[in-house]
Amino acid sequence: MNASTKAYEELMTRLKRTALLASCSAVLEWDEQTYLPALGSEHRANQLALLAGMVHEQATNPEIGNLLQELETNADFTEGSFEQANVREARHEFDRATKLPRRLVEELSRVATLSHHAWVQARKANQFNDFLPWLEQMIDLKREEASAIGYQGRSAYDALLDEYEPGATSEMIEQAFLPLRDELVSLVSAINNSAVAPEISILTRKYPVEKQREFSISAAKAIGFNFDAGRLDIAAHPFCSGFGPGDCRLTTRYDEHHFPGAFFGTLHEAGHGIYEQGLPKEHFGTPSGHSTSLGIHESQSRMWENLVGRSRAFWDVFFQPAQALFPEALGNVSQEEFYRAINDVRPSFIRVEADEVTYNLHIMLRFELEKSLISGDLKPADLESAWNEKFVEYFGIKPDTSANGCLQDVHWSAGLIGYFPTYALGNMYAAQFFNAAEKELGDINKLIASGDFVPLKEWLNKNIHSRGKLYRANRLVEVVAGESLSHEPLIAQLQNKYSELYNL
Amino acid sequence: MNASTKAYEELMTRLKRTALLASCSAVLEWDEQTYLPALGSEHRANQLALLAGMVHEQATNPEIGNLLQELETNADFTEGSFEQANVREARHEFDRATKLPRRLVEELSRVATLSHHAWVQARKANQFNDFLPWLEQMIDLKREEASAIGYQGRSAYDALLDEYEPGATSEMIEQAFLPLRDELVSLVSAINNSAVAPEISILTRKYPVEKQREFSISAAKAIGFNFDAGRLDIAAHPFCSGFGPGDCRLTTRYDEHHFPGAFFGTLHEAGHGIYEQGLPKEHFGTPSGHSTSLGIHESQSRMWENLVGRSRAFWDVFFQPAQALFPEALGNVSQEEFYRAINDVRPSFIRVEADEVTYNLHIMLRFELEKSLISGDLKPADLESAWNEKFVEYFGIKPDTSANGCLQDVHWSAGLIGYFPTYALGNMYAAQFFNAAEKELGDINKLIASGDFVPLKEWLNKNIHSRGKLYRANRLVEVVAGESLSHEPLIAQLQNKYSELYNL
Repeated sequence: MNASTKAYEELMTRLKRTALLASCSAVLEWDEQTYLPALGSEHRANQLALLAGMVHEQATNPEIGNLLQELETNADFTEGSFEQANVREARHEFDRATKLPRRLVEELSRVATLSHHAWVQARKANQFNDFLPWLEQMIDLKREEASAIGYQGRSAYDALLDEYEPGATSEMIEQAFLPLRDELVSLVSAINNSAVAPEISILTRKYPVEKQREFSISAAKAIGFNFDAGRLDIAAHPFCSGFGPGDCRLTTRYDEHHFPGAFFGTLHEAGHGIYEQGLPKEHFGTPSGHSTSLGIHESQSRMWENLVGRSRAFWDVFFQPAQALFPEALGNVSQEEFYRAINDVRPSFIRVEADEVTYNLHIMLRFELEKSLISGDLKPADLESAWNEKFVEYFGIKPDTSANGCLQDVHWSAGLIGYFPTYALGNMYAAQFFNAAEKELGDINKLIASGDFVPLKEWLNKNIHSRGKLYRANRLVEVVAGESLSHEPLIAQLQNKYSELYNL
Repeated sequence: MNASTKAYEELMTRLKRTALLASCSAVLEWDEQTYLPALGSEHRANQLALLAGMVHEQATNPEIGNLLQELETNADFTEGSFEQANVREARHEFDRATKLPRRLVEELSRVATLSHHAWVQARKANQFNDFLPWLEQMIDLKREEASAIGYQGRSAYDALLDEYEPGATSEMIEQAFLPLRDELVSLVSAINNSAVAPEISILTRKYPVEKQREFSISAAKAIGFNFDAGRLDIAAHPFCSGFGPGDCRLTTRYDEHHFPGAFFGTLHEAGHGIYEQGLPKEHFGTPSGHSTSLGIHESQSRMWENLVGRSRAFWDVFFQPAQALFPEALGNVSQEEFYRAINDVRPSFIRVEADEVTYNLHIMLRFELEKSLISGDLKPADLESAWNEKFVEYFGIKPDTSANGCLQDVHWSAGLIGYFPTYALGNMYAAQFFNAAEKELGDINKLIASGDFVPLKEWLNKNIHSRGKLYRANRLVEVVAGESLSHEPLIAQLQNKYSELYNL
């Protein structure tokens, strides 16, 4: 075995060990959101802090730097190989981790916990000012984090964005967002002026929770989430967590009088879960065994939730079972009425309840505001007024409360800044991937209408999931869809779908 | 700060850190038994092995040895203080851990996993011979473990027993078991010859699972288990796991046609849980913050399950609610009929379903057999015939199948040898503690009959739980009950209760 092969194997062993330890944290975090008793939070915080410290210690071990240097100098990897990608991404992660002083990592973790609690309270009390001091602290810490990481002539925001979407820049995102925004604003306005008005009250009739659960699980199973290698539990903030091979946990929340929440939420999380379950098991713990980026992850969840789940074809299969399970709510509803209700477009305050069209505007608003917060152009104290002003500009309505405005999302309280744009990137990537899949598979809606989700799932397995971090997101879309990130497929799909629905 | 104070603080920091890490394992183990998807076991085994290795590494760090030596040489702790107990028990745990070579620890963990699987299969197939090769390997490894630990002129079995009941010896256990056995055998025989025959079929009527859950939780809450700091979930093998301050998990299993299983199982686990919840939180991670021994732990679970839960007084409070919840099963049953049914005594094959009187005979049988397996007097190949022979001797019946005989328990497959006697020790300690409590509180059954469980719980909190590992079990019973381990209080309680029930 030559020195490079040996160095490569040792590097992989170290990365796998660290990932295995980090996956223990993931179990504790999942339990925290699902089953932790009220008085257990302090002990849980101690457990998680210990594991985070140990993971950081392992991830920044100088021996990793030595191994990387040996490999970068002497190894001769095949262009486009998993080995090459592993070294590239290991370097990226090692550099990010070592640039952050342990003090800052600990301070961020501590403030995030406290700030999250303050946010929960402030949101309940509808008092932005109660959260403001924490937001100020968090913004300061995230600016410090950006400086520590460095951003070579780009904006400080880019250093944060890079954590969630490696290689992405705010410039690249703006280039996609600006034209998308203009198109969306005019599409929303056209829909608002349409005489068509779906009867959405059918979605808030009585849908017994146990039946919602059964129905959501049957749909998640149908699209390809494997429940022998995963579960669905209840959590206040729905999420998907892939612990490792054979174990991926989804969560959702139920409201007896709101059908779409749990159902599309479950499809969404199952989309993430299908990605996690499709990662190459043999690479677990190395970059090749993990997802490309949050944007690509979101492309998977949004594809199953929207492009599949909110299609006419999907309800050709699922409407009758839904009617049978919810006779009280849907007995006198036609499939077409139901289809129109779940695709109702209207400006609303809350991002996570937004329709497919206005959703991206919610993201852009947050992207612009958080960029200004990090650049210093916007003071945290002015966030609420800036939010409300922009909201009127984009949606024509002004949030009635802080909870329905800038206090609605968990992200900033938890220090997740640079995370929001990945949601809109996901929508754009989803449209691009869907078109590419259609080129190969033919009319996907025809497959869906026959209840056959396997070809699409396998196409995604082959083209996206099995590649792990082989490519960065911007390269993956080129390889898979033959084009760079673009807003055009998404806007074309939306125009096409909603012109028909709203007689535009 | 002098050198000893500094050494003491550093030792405590190290112990707490290791305990915190071990408590992460406990979360993963709980999840393994409750919610783990089928295909997740391999990854979970990898996670647990990693954590076990890290815990062992920390627990055997030579610096702990140096700190202990410094403290043993120079520290001047108050007699009977928590500090003194912490150093004494830290030494005990450090010596045990360091005497075990890492290879043996890993081999034991590996064989236990495989052997457990083999046991599940063999039990299902009712084939002792399928399990035999694993039992042979396990006995060899446990003998090796005993040698590594050493047993200075005592029996090899004592080195194993010491893990679960620190300071106990097989001689001391025999001294208590032998007279207890004789008394029990004659009590069982008297009951068998009694004309009284409770109508036990009322316990296997239909008890809807959801209502069993509700009823079990209400009883666990009533006796003092705090559900803000714990939960009750479902597992195939019921257990209690205290993760740390504010977080203790109970599990049980439900059978729609067997009321006692889940109900007394939950009371039992809640008894363990009340102990865990009563440990001094500020000492978490040090010996003073953890339970004395498995025997003392079992005294708590058996006290609530049997001395409280199977008393007439308890059903003065709970029979009416039970009747209201289970009208189909209990509508035409009197409280006295019910009380007699849950206290039915008869020889049976399965330990975990055994009544209060025969239960201890099941333990003694296992104690004698496992001692012989470790000494080498009994070959694993002869275990089944030895079991069946002894069974006839103790119970007058011969197991009809291996699954109802020597394959029924999980312990030996998992390497838990020396564990069984702690169950019977628990019964004896429970009786001794109950008498001591009664001396202070007056007639406890009177309190129970009025639904007031607080005085007993608080007495246990004060006298047992809050003391952590301040005393070893044999000393604790002297301090609390004013006498050494004795079979007499238990036998007196049983004779008293069952003479009345069976007109002896």
